[in-house]
Amino acid sequence: MSDPVRRLVDQLTRLPSVGEKTATRLAYHILRDRQDLARDLAEALVSVAEDVRLCSVCCNLSGTDPCPICAEPRRDVGLVCVVEQPQDIPAVEQSGEYSGTFHVLHGSLNPLDGVGPEDIHVAELLARVRDGDLSEVILATNPTVEGEATALYLAKLLKPLEIRVTRIAQGISVGSELEYTDGGTIARALRNRQEI
Amino acid sequence: MSDPVRRLVDQLTRLPSVGEKTATRLAYHILRDRQDLARDLAEALVSVAEDVRLCSVCCNLSGTDPCPICAEPRRDVGLVCVVEQPQDIPAVEQSGEYSGTFHVLHGSLNPLDGVGPEDIHVAELLARVRDGDLSEVILATNPTVEGEATALYLAKLLKPLEIRVTRIAQGISVGSELEYTDGGTIARALRNRQEI
Repeated sequence: MSDPVRRLVDQLTRLPSVGEKTATRLAYHILRDRQDLARDLAEALVSVAEDVRLCSVCCNLSGTDPCPICAEPRRDVGLVCVVEQPQDIPAVEQSGEYSGTFHVLHGSLNPLDGVGPEDIHVAELLARVRDGDLSEVILATNPTVEGEATALYLAKLLKPLEIRVTRIAQGISVGSELEYTDGGTIARALRNRQEI
Repeated sequence: MSDPVRRLVDQLTRLPSVGEKTATRLAYHILRDRQDLARDLAEALVSVAEDVRLCSVCCNLSGTDPCPICAEPRRDVGLVCVVEQPQDIPAVEQSGEYSGTFHVLHGSLNPLDGVGPEDIHVAELLARVRDGDLSEVILATNPTVEGEATALYLAKLLKPLEIRVTRIAQGISVGSELEYTDGGTIARALRNRQEI
């Protein structure tokens, strides 16, 4: 393997779940491509490295500040949905159920890995609640141990600020089958049952 | 998703077996990386786009011309191993059995996809055989329909040039089990059986 190809393979193995074999396959695909894939991809990478920053309002990753969502005039700015990662935003948006703004923590509390409140964007959220005219904070962290702990921690911090704090509902997934649903989810679905 | 991130995701989906979901995961991994992955990868990509060319001797992809293998003084230059792709070279090298040079076709004959002899580097191979002092050409194209057809085609072209033309042996893989070996391979292994 020639030096530049070797170097590309080495860099590609830094990507998640890309080992030596996959990296080699990707590198040769890039080399064989006749439509400037290498250059286009390089430009896109430089562009994210140079242009993408945190939105000063919601901490979302964005090429503009404020981010496109915070800049949208029709959004209900009184409503803030708190998520762990930027990629959670498209998931919530796709639901078609939400017209408020977001706040991205960039992680969840994880004492074992040494991630405390100062490592995720909690201070910015508190500042928004204190300074802004918010009506509700929806905690949409993941239903994992860390996500739950983060939601509880945030609820405890936010409640004294006299704002409505809610947590997204947990239960069985739409379209799933009870037979294949794990016990923890069914337990939660039973506990949170509602009158119909 | 912000514009630069969207653009990176779009470019990543041009890679083989990378769909929208994987591309998004890769893009956010790149964004979260604090060790300059985006820039390093971009530089490696630009370097392959700018520096990698075909070796004028063997058509291997290389940052230098001739490629490191053709430039090695200890190689047996009378022996040429013909392979389909550049990535086949490390596979042959790893065997530790080979000390000759290579010739890379960059493909195999495939009439259905419109790949004819003029689309793969056959002319360069013929010129090497005509002009050089070669003793043997080993056809190491893949044991697929296209690879076999290519090997037969090349053998037909090379034989009249009064050079020894061989094909790598086909049979059961070392370390494999008969139980799990396909019928075609076993048939070939029986047909090519040798005295011990």
